[in-house]
Amino acid sequence: MAKPKKTPRPKAETPKGFRDYFGAEVTQRAEMLRKIAAVYHRYGFDALESSGVETVEALGKFLPDVDRPNEGVFAWQEDAEADKPGDWLALRYDLTAPLARVYAQHQNDLPKPYRRYAMGPVWRNEKPGPGRFRQFYQCDADTVGAPSVAADAEICAMLADCLEEVGIPRGDYVIRVNNRKVLNGVLEVAGLADDDKDRERGIVLRAIDKLDRLGVEGVQALLGEGRKDESGDFTNGAGLSIAQIDKVLSFVTAKEQAAEDLAAALEIERQSNPGFDGRLSAMKGSFGSVGPMDSYKPEEYQTVFLLTFLKKLVAGSKAGEEGVDELGQIYLALFDQGYGPDRIIIDPSVVRGLGYYTGPVYEAELTFDIQDEKGRTRNFGSVAGGGRYDDLVKRFTGHEVPATGVSIGVDRLLAALQAKGRMTSSEAGPVVVTVMDRDRMADYQKMVADLRRAGIRAEVYLGNPKNFGNQLKYADKRGSPVAVIEGGDEKERGVVQIKDLILGAQIAESATLEEWKDRPSQFEVPRDDLVAKVREILRQHGLPDGSSEA
Amino acid sequence: MAKPKKTPRPKAETPKGFRDYFGAEVTQRAEMLRKIAAVYHRYGFDALESSGVETVEALGKFLPDVDRPNEGVFAWQEDAEADKPGDWLALRYDLTAPLARVYAQHQNDLPKPYRRYAMGPVWRNEKPGPGRFRQFYQCDADTVGAPSVAADAEICAMLADCLEEVGIPRGDYVIRVNNRKVLNGVLEVAGLADDDKDRERGIVLRAIDKLDRLGVEGVQALLGEGRKDESGDFTNGAGLSIAQIDKVLSFVTAKEQAAEDLAAALEIERQSNPGFDGRLSAMKGSFGSVGPMDSYKPEEYQTVFLLTFLKKLVAGSKAGEEGVDELGQIYLALFDQGYGPDRIIIDPSVVRGLGYYTGPVYEAELTFDIQDEKGRTRNFGSVAGGGRYDDLVKRFTGHEVPATGVSIGVDRLLAALQAKGRMTSSEAGPVVVTVMDRDRMADYQKMVADLRRAGIRAEVYLGNPKNFGNQLKYADKRGSPVAVIEGGDEKERGVVQIKDLILGAQIAESATLEEWKDRPSQFEVPRDDLVAKVREILRQHGLPDGSSEA
Repeated sequence: MAKPKKTPRPKAETPKGFRDYFGAEVTQRAEMLRKIAAVYHRYGFDALESSGVETVEALGKFLPDVDRPNEGVFAWQEDAEADKPGDWLALRYDLTAPLARVYAQHQNDLPKPYRRYAMGPVWRNEKPGPGRFRQFYQCDADTVGAPSVAADAEICAMLADCLEEVGIPRGDYVIRVNNRKVLNGVLEVAGLADDDKDRERGIVLRAIDKLDRLGVEGVQALLGEGRKDESGDFTNGAGLSIAQIDKVLSFVTAKEQAAEDLAAALEIERQSNPGFDGRLSAMKGSFGSVGPMDSYKPEEYQTVFLLTFLKKLVAGSKAGEEGVDELGQIYLALFDQGYGPDRIIIDPSVVRGLGYYTGPVYEAELTFDIQDEKGRTRNFGSVAGGGRYDDLVKRFTGHEVPATGVSIGVDRLLAALQAKGRMTSSEAGPVVVTVMDRDRMADYQKMVADLRRAGIRAEVYLGNPKNFGNQLKYADKRGSPVAVIEGGDEKERGVVQIKDLILGAQIAESATLEEWKDRPSQFEVPRDDLVAKVREILRQHGLPDGSSEA
Repeated sequence: MAKPKKTPRPKAETPKGFRDYFGAEVTQRAEMLRKIAAVYHRYGFDALESSGVETVEALGKFLPDVDRPNEGVFAWQEDAEADKPGDWLALRYDLTAPLARVYAQHQNDLPKPYRRYAMGPVWRNEKPGPGRFRQFYQCDADTVGAPSVAADAEICAMLADCLEEVGIPRGDYVIRVNNRKVLNGVLEVAGLADDDKDRERGIVLRAIDKLDRLGVEGVQALLGEGRKDESGDFTNGAGLSIAQIDKVLSFVTAKEQAAEDLAAALEIERQSNPGFDGRLSAMKGSFGSVGPMDSYKPEEYQTVFLLTFLKKLVAGSKAGEEGVDELGQIYLALFDQGYGPDRIIIDPSVVRGLGYYTGPVYEAELTFDIQDEKGRTRNFGSVAGGGRYDDLVKRFTGHEVPATGVSIGVDRLLAALQAKGRMTSSEAGPVVVTVMDRDRMADYQKMVADLRRAGIRAEVYLGNPKNFGNQLKYADKRGSPVAVIEGGDEKERGVVQIKDLILGAQIAESATLEEWKDRPSQFEVPRDDLVAKVREILRQHGLPDGSSEA
């Protein structure tokens, strides 16, 4: 008889592109999400939790990132029922598509506007890369059914509050605000708005988005004849006229040009006014909707000049002018509430990839430097972004519903806090009560119960107690601050030994005997003083000593 | 030319068996999970978060519930790469299978024993039913690599602490503990342990599990010839001998028989000892491993008699005797730590469906009555359960790794708290600042910013402000406690109107004019007193007034 074939053992592996998170990685993320949720809640947003699974039909066949239109979702078909084929289901790829579905499904029961926050994992069926996983967290807040840019302004302010709440101090971040309508206005005045200019428009948008990498000259080449890159490959250009190129480049360099205009205006005023105090009294061609120049403080001039420059640039395009006016309203609302240009700035270079944005867009960038994986110093970069999308609900209902919202990249923000040393990457382990005599397990469990009742994190060693060294190795691996020992002798005398493992490690590592001889790291105390002594040691090391929980 | 066919609008629907959770449903669950995590953490367990997606190979092709072996997982095949077919991936169906994979994958880096807790959604591809969803939360804690029943005892104590921490008071729950080895011992002494008794064993186990529904007589019929149910259908019996049936029924009714033994022993002692104080001094055939009878308190007698009865029942089966001894050790350890039979009891009727349990099993039951969906009064029933499973890691490594753990049914526990009125089903909405004059949006946003800075949940109305009635309807729908109003007249006089909406609703609903005329529900206060007055009203209604957050 043939031997039965053994089934091979399964591989113990996460699927490619997925990973496990341990200990502090989990609790720190939870703590950060709790803080962000508290800010969202204070701003009046209500929690929503939809499931990870949606119908492919409801999600739509598009992914938010236009740069990777072919990247997909994880999808599968349900079993057929009777003669009806099964629905196609998929894991959600963001929290915005489910929101549109929820709003359309429950619109009769929801308050209007509907303001909700949501947090949880999303999944992307993409090729995984270094630091890029196929499941990750998002943490969103959106207002659905509010056409006013007051809703956009509020979300920018809330984003600033969130960043400060989790530990990014003012000065270490900036929130950049732009408006898609301004870009559309530029395309319109450059004669690129018509349907038959699709190809040119595509090249222009991609070129603008690459400004960081290509510089103004590279963009200029792409707008005109085309561009040869370092490897010699040639990219076809949009073939625009000089006048058209000028319009687009003016937009791309608006910030710099507005800054020059401002410097010139200040210089003129300085020369013509001997008592010049740094305040502009008037400005020719001032940006209408933000009022006369002398109502602004000097730190606002840059924004006012930028808006004025943009307004002139898009003059004649209704969408463009409306876009600049909206930026002005957002800027004013935020400045009034104390969110000045030290935190939130208008920046026409913000494009954001998502095709569905229709109005204001915003992006939070961390401005401090870090070392990247190749050891190069660079800006930490974007950790959150969002904008106005007025068409998403329409897919379901046929009616346009104005909406705006933000998504915080949870894992990137967490990495930023770790990079800045605002979060330690480990947490204190439990007090470990060792087992000297396995027949007296009940005694050790009693000690642990006493410690826990006092709010102190503690456990009895539950592995094989035979090798005492293994018990101390275990305490070390857990990062335990304290070990408790009670042998037969101690039991008889009614005492326990308490080892300060943190101090012990310090002594072993760095000190001369002389220096430490007066600071023992092991103490014998009466059994009844166990909790008090452990608490004292924890407090000395600045660890939670349970007193707030007991 | 033919008109282009319009794509039909997608349906705005959750997939069958999935649902959305709103507001308080989300925040209350989060709060409950936070409390449970704090207890797990205090007991020395570390957080672990694995992804929702695993390879089908790692999950195994079995589901934990033996009653529904054909129910499945949500699974799909990855795209093929080069000439390699894609892996099959699936959503996790519980948190234990991923733990086994994690332990096997990271065993060289993990402390041993490895103690972890995990919480999150799991998915089952089952036919949905009322109150039964295809995505739900679990919240587990497990100790891997600890052979001692001290680990099991600890988890039972922790489960009791968790229930009390989230708001189930002592007396409203009981944790029942059993041991699979005892059942195996009974099967052995009944001559049903051999491989060729597979069919009989299956019938016996299913019959025991149905004791609640069938009663002792029904079980007896299934053990013998078989049983005709109410509809006339006949179920074949196991065809056991009278002696075999007697063994199994003794096990099934062990609690009742032990109680009778105890009553008889007390009666004998009462008759033979005129000064009887309710304490037994000795007992013939006392259960060895728990020591002499006079070392126990009267409230322990029931457990000691039960263990003694079981020990006699399984005498001759090594597994059975070991099982009873382990139950004795668990019982003693827990009693010593203060977890007496008012919280944790030994109960041989606990079977638990999961096929993979190998030793102690435990289950938390809520003992208070609720009305079910048909209006019948019934016990709330089980909210958590677990046990020892020594074989799960072996699938991967070939080595047996002892493990024990518990899983809390988060949604059932939440439903229990709501049924007991320990959680309200709604939460207070934000203070709503209404918009009387849309050109003064900045003023209203400033008010909201002031309130938020004081830690008070607040928002400005962001819908179309034209119809003021809609603004108050919105505040009502949000459950807002307070509305703030500032028209042109108030602005001029430097005041705001503050409406106490809770008091207003009470007046409108129930009171006579007389009764309330001295308690106005609308107040005019100086703009500068806005925050103080709102805080005062919130405090009067027992709502969070921001003072702890500001």
